[in-house]
This record gives sequence, structure tokens and C-alpha cells, in this order.
Amino acid sequence: MENRIENKTEQRRGFLKNIAASVVAAGALAPVSMSAKDDPALIEEPEWGKKLGLPVDKYLYGVPSPYEHNVKRRVHKLLSSGDMYASVAMCPIQDLEGIITPNGLFFNRAHGGVAIVDPNKYRLIIHGLVEKPLVLTLDQLKRYPSESRIHFIECPANGSTGWRAPQFNTLQFMKGMMSQAEWTGVKLSVLLKDVGVKPTAKWVLAEGSDNSHMGRTIPIEKIMDDAMLVWAQNGEALRPEQGYPVRLLVPGWEGNLNVKWLKRLEFGDKPWHAKEETSKYTMLTPTGKAVRYFWPMEVNSVITHPSPDKPWTDLKKGDLVEIQGLAWSGHGTIKGVDITFDGGKNWVEASLKGLVLPKAWTRFSYIYKWDGKPIILGSRAYDDAGFVQPTITEEVSKMGVEGIYHRNAIVTWEVTAKGEVNNVHVRDYKKERESIEKMQKGAKDA
Amino acid sequence: MENRIENKTEQRRGFLKNIAASVVAAGALAPVSMSAKDDPALIEEPEWGKKLGLPVDKYLYGVPSPYEHNVKRRVHKLLSSGDMYASVAMCPIQDLEGIITPNGLFFNRAHGGVAIVDPNKYRLIIHGLVEKPLVLTLDQLKRYPSESRIHFIECPANGSTGWRAPQFNTLQFMKGMMSQAEWTGVKLSVLLKDVGVKPTAKWVLAEGSDNSHMGRTIPIEKIMDDAMLVWAQNGEALRPEQGYPVRLLVPGWEGNLNVKWLKRLEFGDKPWHAKEETSKYTMLTPTGKAVRYFWPMEVNSVITHPSPDKPWTDLKKGDLVEIQGLAWSGHGTIKGVDITFDGGKNWVEASLKGLVLPKAWTRFSYIYKWDGKPIILGSRAYDDAGFVQPTITEEVSKMGVEGIYHRNAIVTWEVTAKGEVNNVHVRDYKKERESIEKMQKGAKDA
Repeated sequence: MENRIENKTEQRRGFLKNIAASVVAAGALAPVSMSAKDDPALIEEPEWGKKLGLPVDKYLYGVPSPYEHNVKRRVHKLLSSGDMYASVAMCPIQDLEGIITPNGLFFNRAHGGVAIVDPNKYRLIIHGLVEKPLVLTLDQLKRYPSESRIHFIECPANGSTGWRAPQFNTLQFMKGMMSQAEWTGVKLSVLLKDVGVKPTAKWVLAEGSDNSHMGRTIPIEKIMDDAMLVWAQNGEALRPEQGYPVRLLVPGWEGNLNVKWLKRLEFGDKPWHAKEETSKYTMLTPTGKAVRYFWPMEVNSVITHPSPDKPWTDLKKGDLVEIQGLAWSGHGTIKGVDITFDGGKNWVEASLKGLVLPKAWTRFSYIYKWDGKPIILGSRAYDDAGFVQPTITEEVSKMGVEGIYHRNAIVTWEVTAKGEVNNVHVRDYKKERESIEKMQKGAKDA
Repeated sequence: MENRIENKTEQRRGFLKNIAASVVAAGALAPVSMSAKDDPALIEEPEWGKKLGLPVDKYLYGVPSPYEHNVKRRVHKLLSSGDMYASVAMCPIQDLEGIITPNGLFFNRAHGGVAIVDPNKYRLIIHGLVEKPLVLTLDQLKRYPSESRIHFIECPANGSTGWRAPQFNTLQFMKGMMSQAEWTGVKLSVLLKDVGVKPTAKWVLAEGSDNSHMGRTIPIEKIMDDAMLVWAQNGEALRPEQGYPVRLLVPGWEGNLNVKWLKRLEFGDKPWHAKEETSKYTMLTPTGKAVRYFWPMEVNSVITHPSPDKPWTDLKKGDLVEIQGLAWSGHGTIKGVDITFDGGKNWVEASLKGLVLPKAWTRFSYIYKWDGKPIILGSRAYDDAGFVQPTITEEVSKMGVEGIYHRNAIVTWEVTAKGEVNNVHVRDYKKERESIEKMQKGAKDA
């Protein structure tokens, strides 16, 4: 689906002057007030400084501070298939910093539970339309030359809970079916030199060794372009819920194609129509027909600070604050992000910060002086493939309202005069505002 | 200390032709042999595919596979000050992939144990020669505009156990006092605009709030250049052993300067001569005088694959293998790495792979066909500031043998005909070869 907006440049130039005037260059924020008891000379020695800490061998594999217990993956019964084996534990993206997701918080989607694989018994099979089928042990696979790349993985259903009627008022449940890591493994184009793919091979079935036998078909062009077999994330072995010991990585494409606990790659001359690409991961259109085999995750973005989980209730009128968010595209590299304060009528350009990598989360930032009045905040990303994030109206006009996958419309937050932040849509703002209280009661947490 | 080698380019060009001839371009490795029972059609369904895995809510903060239990930090009584409170747990760099260290494996150096800090009671004090002293809560600090950067942190004693007589025959104990993460926080040059540093301020004391009151003095130029106050590593809050909730980050400089559990920054007009910069972290020279206030970690590198921990005992003569390692420099960006197979007589150039960032670990790689004969393997890194890693002879001639800090001489591995790998030095190879058996018995693990 192309989400190209032809008059994008024009839209971006028409920013709202009143808002722009209140924006300052990134730099010093408003001075923090000090009370008399905050005099440095009067600061007491903290209790933890008066005694020895933990010995360094207390945790030979470290754990987070006990004070961070609330930063965790979360599950919701509405997002599972009736049990916790075909379900998803969502990533607290509202709490993340930078572009790396720590392995303990990487979102966890399984179709038959998280397989615990014995690496000594693990075998990877490569067969079908190849000159020389292979069965590799893990050690044999790891002997191939490796590469490390930073990529997001996103479930195509990510955001489906929030785009139509606003069902959730937390960013974690709205957009937490994605995470990002530095992945290490071998490029398939390198490994397959030892296999000899036949010219008649056009499709590859990737099948998991787990209970669900998760299988997806991938065109040979993607396999030979940038697909990898990966065995490490953020420097260590894959976590069990990420497919330990080996998963397929198809950068930028639907999460479920990145098959975990990978059992085999079979080369064939036609797609397989595997269970998970007929019963699921198809896109119902307004005509009643379903689209299959659409893979790249569209250009997308969301503001994480503020968000329903990170409100401005501690801000005072006139305070400077950094608006922050994540942008990403499975088609390429993020070129820019615009921000609106009035629900999409006018836009200003945000700064990209830190590493800007292809098919990777990119942080954006905007320093803003809040005047204490309600605003409707949203972000719109565009990538180097020419795609621009659509409005909800544009998306619905093209895709209808039936499908739950690949929804990448602009997300809008209502910021109230109190600094509360709510998930709203701007198509029918008043109506949706009325539903917020109901929504907040019902779906705040699992 | 400058480790510049004037005739470096000339040395690098004089590579050994016999070795170069056996080197192939990165790409396909030798085909793996298949036995009859490896026929893909005969591969049995693995046991883990016959049952449901773990529910996705089993771990809301994930943990590694139980099969990876041996990948952990390690402590050694020889590397502590008599107890586990003033000690170090070393990072298993031999097991790492890519350039990110997962937070659970980040090396852990403490002087008075690992403080467990209550973030609600945490205060950061900025005072001394400033117009407006500040006391910040954690929330106030986090409101400043943030940046995320990937940097290593290395203890200046890293490698001191291996450079003279080879005391350890494991990479983890030789070089595991370093790790790397994506750090997020505020640049001090941004925050200090709210403080107004007086022109007379030339030095800054950074003091920890932990039991040891770890304190170090840092010149104002570094503080205003790229120093940061960081509160996150790899996307989540700092781990307790990395200074939760706030540590100082002085990119590329001695690890102990990156003060953890940071209590205060005091601006002054002269250095403080704090305990940890007089009793420790000075460099004894051959004259008997000690050098103080030397900060950047020198250009350095080590081959991680193979290493004593990752031998070639499963390789057969004629097998292709990827030689891999890490290079880094506190002075800037790695420009290249050379590899020797004959203990430093001749050198060939390795490839840098993945991200090449300033003051950051950089992976290097070399595809090699092993002919089954013994070799003496070593790596030599050079950076964009003009520094080149010295030989042990060059290092000793400049620095003597007294000091244990900032030793960055070339590390050499002996690879035997059996594929075993040992830590040796090439100054007196025969003598040191004799000590290996003794060494292996005594210091393999804690």
C-alpha cells in the first residue's frame, strides 16, 4: 500500500506561526527553582551512602534495580487467542530511551508458547530446489562470517488496537508490538553459496521448530537481498522468546516472517499458502477480498513523550519540554518527522537525533514551550523511499475499516489543560472525546 | 602517552606473502559435510516441537536461555581488594557479538559495593564556582533534552593481568574490565547553561553517593566537550552496578572517571587530589615518580575469535574461519586494524565491520584458511588521532614495568597445531611457552 501524499512538501511548509513562535532552539531549559532546604550545604548523606552496597558477585548476570519493577512487558486478554500460548507480551516503549530495546523487554509474540530449545540438539535444514541440501548444527552455522545490524521487528497488527475506535489509552498496548535490537548472524546470500540455489527457486518457506510450526513464505529476492540467520541480539545469544538459538531476520518486514526457533528453509517455485498466511496475516479489504503477501512495514511514527503513559501533569504553563518519539519504516531510512499541535492542520519539523539507520527506529525531538492550553499533538514520518505517514481519513479511504494489519495512520494525543494525555482521533474529535472516560475505565491494564 | 609509530604505514605494507595467498575474500566457507543420517527427510521432530512452550507471561522481564548459564560475569580473588565490595566482575567479552553488551553482562567495578539507590530520594548537587547552584531531583534532570550515544567504558587496569608475565589464559580475565552500551542522558554543556559556570572554574570534582565516596577530578574542557549525565543504558534505566539512577559519562576516558551513583559536581579552580587519584589510578614510572591525571584510554585491540576461550580445536586443516576481534580508542575513531600471524614480523589488514563510531568498540574481521600449522596471532589497531597500538617492547621501553594502568600493548595468541590457543608474549616466546602449563592449572577460573 502506498501512502504517498503528493502535496506533502506544501503541507509541511504551512506551519502555524503562533506555535512556531513559542519554540526555542534545543538547549537550556527553564531554571529549576530551589528551596532553602535544597541548599547543597544542607543536603543530608543518603542512607545508601552509609553502608556497604551489594558485593559484585551478587548477580553474575545482572538484573534491573528493584525500583524499576514497573518497567516490564505487559499482556492483555484482548490481545491473545484465549490463552497465554498464542499471545503477545508487549514492550513498554513509553519507558524506552535511545533506539536499543534491552533484551528483557523485547516484545514476545508466540503462537504455541515460547519453545525452550536444546542448542546441542538443534539442527537447521536447508533443502528443496538447491544443488546441495544442508543440515547444520549451531556450531557449524556460527562458523560463517557474521554481520551485526540494528533493526526493529514489528508485528503487522501493531497499532490495530488504537486506530479505529480508541480502545486503549496506553502507548504500551497501542504500539508495544515492536522492539529493536542489534542482531548478529550470517547473511543468507553468503551462506547460500554453499547450497547452490537452483534458478527455478522463487520462494522460500521458513518454518519454526516450535509447537505451532509457524511457517511463512518469502520471495527469493528478499532472501538474497538482506535476510539473515541470526543467533544473537544485543551481544548475547537470542533470548528464548526471540527464537533461541536461531531465527530468520527479514529486515523491515512483518514480524511473523522473522520465524523463530527456525527449523528449515525450503526453496520452491511457488508460495506455500501456509496456515499463518491464509488464516492470519492477510488484509481484508472493503470489497470482501483479502490481500495476501504484503510484507514491508509501512512508514510510521508515534510520540512517546508525552503520551497517555507520560503525561505533562507535572508541567507548569511556560515550562520548556522535549517532545520525543520514535519513527521507523520497513521501506528504508527515516528522512524526517513533522509534528502538529492542532490535530493535523499545521505542521512543524522535528529534529532526528542519534543514529539514523535503514529499517530502524529513529528518535525525533522537538523542544517546546507549553502555554497550558489544550493541544492535539501528532507526528508524521516520511522515509527515503518516498512514503509519508497518512492521516486516518486517508488510510480508511484506501484500506477500509475491516483489516487489522498494516495500520500506520498518524496517532494523535489530546493534551488537556491539566496536562493529561489521551489517545484520540481527529476525524470526529468530540465524539471520541466522550468515549475516553469509558475507555480509561475498561482498558487501562491487564 | 603517545604510542605513535612513525613507520607504521611501511610496516603495514610489508605483509607476509605466503599468508596473504591463503586468504580468500569474505564469502562462502568450505562446504559442511553431510552424513546419511543428516538427510533432511530423516530429521526427527525435536522434542520441544511436540509440546507447548512457556506462556508469554512467564517472564514479564525476560531472562536468557537456561542453556546459556555459562555466559556470565566472573570474579577472581586476585582482582579484588580482599573482598567482593572493592572488586570487579568481568565481562565475558569472548562470548559477545556485535558492539552492544547486554546490560546483564556489563562489567561491574565497585569500591564499596553496589549501592541500591532510592530514585525518589536521589538528589544531584551542582555547586562550587557557579552562578546558581542547583539541586535536582531525578525527574527534573530527566526533563532536560537527552542524547543517546554508544561508547565503551574501560577500567584503566584492563589488560594489566596479561601484559607482563602471562598470568591468565582466559580473555575474560585478561580484558573483561570493559563493556559497551548505548547511553542516554543530557550533555553537561546543555545542562550547565542553567547553572552559569564561572570563568575561574577549571576543574570539576565528581563524587559518588555510595559508601566509597568515589571521587575524581576532571578538567572543565572535557566536561564542556562531550561529558554527559546519563540515566539509561541500552534503552532502560541504568543498572544498579552502573550507577542507578545517574552516572557521569566521560566518553573514552578511564572507567573510574565515569562516577556512578553521582552525588555532586563541584566546580573549582584546581584539582582535588581525591583519594582515588592519589592512592590509586596513578602510573608509577621507572624513575619512581607517579604520573597523575592522564585520562583517555589508549588505542587498543584484542582478537576474541580465536582466543584461549574460543580455540580452534574443532577446526580441520584447510578450514576457512573468520578471525574476529574488538578495537577501540578513547582518543577517537578506529581507522583500521592489522593482523599478524607470525608474532609481529608481518602484518595484513583486517576489515572493520558494522558501525564504526568515535570512542566506541569496533569489530574487525579477517577470513582465513588455517593450514594446521602453529601461528602467533596478534592485532594492532590505529585511530584517527594518529595513535597506533605499540608492541610490548615499545611499551616497556616508554612506560617501564612498574605501572599496571593504561597498558595497551599488542596481545598475542599462540595457536598450536591442535588448535589450542594460549596467551603468550613474543618478547621471549620460549620461556613464556614453558609457563603456560603452570598458568593453565592455576588461573583458569575463580
